[in-house]
Amino acid sequence: MNKNRVEAFSDGVLAIIITIMIIEIKAPHESSFDALIPLIPVFLSYVLSFTYIGIYWNNHHHLFQASKSVNGKVLWLNMHLLFWLSLIPFTTSWIGEQHFSAVPMSVYGFVLVMCAIAYFALQNKLIQLHGTDSVLKSAIKDDKKGKISLICYAVAIPLAFVAPWISGMLYIAVALLWIVPDKRIEDLINEK
Amino acid sequence: MNKNRVEAFSDGVLAIIITIMIIEIKAPHESSFDALIPLIPVFLSYVLSFTYIGIYWNNHHHLFQASKSVNGKVLWLNMHLLFWLSLIPFTTSWIGEQHFSAVPMSVYGFVLVMCAIAYFALQNKLIQLHGTDSVLKSAIKDDKKGKISLICYAVAIPLAFVAPWISGMLYIAVALLWIVPDKRIEDLINEK
Amino acid sequence: MNKNRVEAFSDGVLAIIITIMIIEIKAPHESSFDALIPLIPVFLSYVLSFTYIGIYWNNHHHLFQASKSVNGKVLWLNMHLLFWLSLIPFTTSWIGEQHFSAVPMSVYGFVLVMCAIAYFALQNKLIQLHGTDSVLKSAIKDDKKGKISLICYAVAIPLAFVAPWISGMLYIAVALLWIVPDKRIEDLINEK
Amino acid sequence: MNKNRVEAFSDGVLAIIITIMIIEIKAPHESSFDALIPLIPVFLSYVLSFTYIGIYWNNHHHLFQASKSVNGKVLWLNMHLLFWLSLIPFTTSWIGEQHFSAVPMSVYGFVLVMCAIAYFALQNKLIQLHGTDSVLKSAIKDDKKGKISLICYAVAIPLAFVAPWISGMLYIAVALLWIVPDKRIEDLINEK
Repeated sequence: MNKNRVEAFSDGVLAIIITIMIIEIKAPHESSFDALIPLIPVFLSYVLSFTYIGIYWNNHHHLFQASKSVNGKVLWLNMHLLFWLSLIPFTTSWIGEQHFSAVPMSVYGFVLVMCAIAYFALQNKLIQLHGTDSVLKSAIKDDKKGKISLICYAVAIPLAFVAPWISGMLYIAVALLWIVPDKRIEDLINEK
Repeated sequence: MNKNRVEAFSDGVLAIIITIMIIEIKAPHESSFDALIPLIPVFLSYVLSFTYIGIYWNNHHHLFQASKSVNGKVLWLNMHLLFWLSLIPFTTSWIGEQHFSAVPMSVYGFVLVMCAIAYFALQNKLIQLHGTDSVLKSAIKDDKKGKISLICYAVAIPLAFVAPWISGMLYIAVALLWIVPDKRIEDLINEK
Repeated sequence: MNKNRVEAFSDGVLAIIITIMIIEIKAPHESSFDALIPLIPVFLSYVLSFTYIGIYWNNHHHLFQASKSVNGKVLWLNMHLLFWLSLIPFTTSWIGEQHFSAVPMSVYGFVLVMCAIAYFALQNKLIQLHGTDSVLKSAIKDDKKGKISLICYAVAIPLAFVAPWISGMLYIAVALLWIVPDKRIEDLINEK
Repeated sequence: MNKNRVEAFSDGVLAIIITIMIIEIKAPHESSFDALIPLIPVFLSYVLSFTYIGIYWNNHHHLFQASKSVNGKVLWLNMHLLFWLSLIPFTTSWIGEQHFSAVPMSVYGFVLVMCAIAYFALQNKLIQLHGTDSVLKSAIKDDKKGKISLICYAVAIPLAFVAPWISGMLYIAVALLWIVPDKRIEDLINEK
């Protein structure tokens, strides 16, 4: 089965998810710089989630690039991943409006955990389909980065109740892990 | 006539339909788990409709994969299908906000009936175009699953006034019929 | 210059235009059939505009299918067409909410006139690019249907102030002209 | 690495950005031409931003058309560009609602500056990837138009506080520079 339409549909859904979050940031009814101040948390949550959707798009792109074909189960596991990603605009607007307080921050982490699990399920099914000696498998290897991310999200859920900023730091750290290609970090991960 | 752009346009419309439903789920104005409770019915209706659009995308994908070409009538029957599918966000938000009460539940079923009829019309036109000895026809066969689904939706419309949860069960059952590939169910359908 | 991305971008914009109109139809806050009655004009305006965007997508599809290449001016004339089409959700929601009264109905016609002019400009530029002996030119011929449509829209603008339903009839008639392939109508148009 | 999906994803995001701005223009609750008057500034800001997104889509299209491949850094620089472009609907609705007053006009310019910087970064990375003797480099040359635009946006930020209409004129002038292909202007730019 051809993979083109799965990619096209996923691109469409991810493009919409990444863009509808901006609708939530309403233009202020005043014409001053001060009027922008209350928007700062909403804006920061937008930056964070834009980055996460960007990371998922990037990884999804690499995953399907290395794949040759798909089957019915892959289609559903992909749909499942898109479902959890589609909840990110909701949690984003919640953490922004509630100024990164404990409950929304833990729910944000929960959705990230579910996205990560859904991504692993999709990735494993694709590896199973292509074989463990495939280009796909060798490109992904152990996916240590993915596993570290999942642990960070999971840990951030309870830690939000200790102090929400710890969860925030963890979400930022994971995002940076994916977008800043640091030789030392890469080595550290691979040594483990 | 080339089928690529019909697929691309349909992917776009389906991607938007599946994603705009999340805009309806507004982040609560409080920062507690209790604040999520009133959102449960809205969330459940989102899960149900996300699954239905996913099923339609999946079937649409298979239908056009097995098709070689399209004509003007196919384009319009496809547009007609997209029209009825585009009403799903409306009925979804209605059943969610009205806690799955009788009238919205029956209207939800009515829109599903119209989607199913539109899908059959599109499928029949494609089979007519490709011939009854085509790959397409042999892939679809009698489409018993499609017929059972249509009957369930039709039955769910009046049953919503007996008890809305019966309609709800029917909608869930049909969704599961499409996503859970159960050998026994498949055999049961094919024996009939 | 390759035409694929112009098609893809136009598909995206048209898919969004056709789908965002449904966001305007808010689920009623009651759970009865009566609660749907006030939505009837909004729903009818949605059906009309969905059909128009469908017609434009169809014609756009045929136009680019018959074209081999594009240039910088084609890109801008295509953008210009998308601009006027993007105003249709606005006029649609206006005629629906104002129950098809005179001013919104004439503004609806004005936007359709601008869409038609923009479409002619795009079509003429593509014919100019491909030559008058091209497949494109022979596929389009005189485009009598397009010219009749433009005249109807133009006439509907002042007639809305005589009686808005006359404009409404004209908009419906033009839509039917494009989607109902009637041999006699086709002959009548070609005889003229 | 294949460039198709980057193009498709960018098309999707740009298509949504260009179209969601129209959602902000709410249909008036009255049925008269007078009711359209308060919408004029919102409409004008829509025209301006539609043109800017159109220009960016056009340039993005040319940039990737001349590119043969992409790498991981290009993907992230592209995402970075889409991020800044995604803020345009926000600034558009702000300048429209605040009648082009000083602060929103300067913030509008700031977002344009960031978009231009993000575009240069993406362009430079693609040139670096393809080599300075590539088709891409020779197609872009010095990109004087891009540099002039960036200077205009930067100058418009403080000038908004002298008089907002000066910034407005600058934004319009830059837009015209890109869409009106004037031989004399082109020569003037190249002579410099």
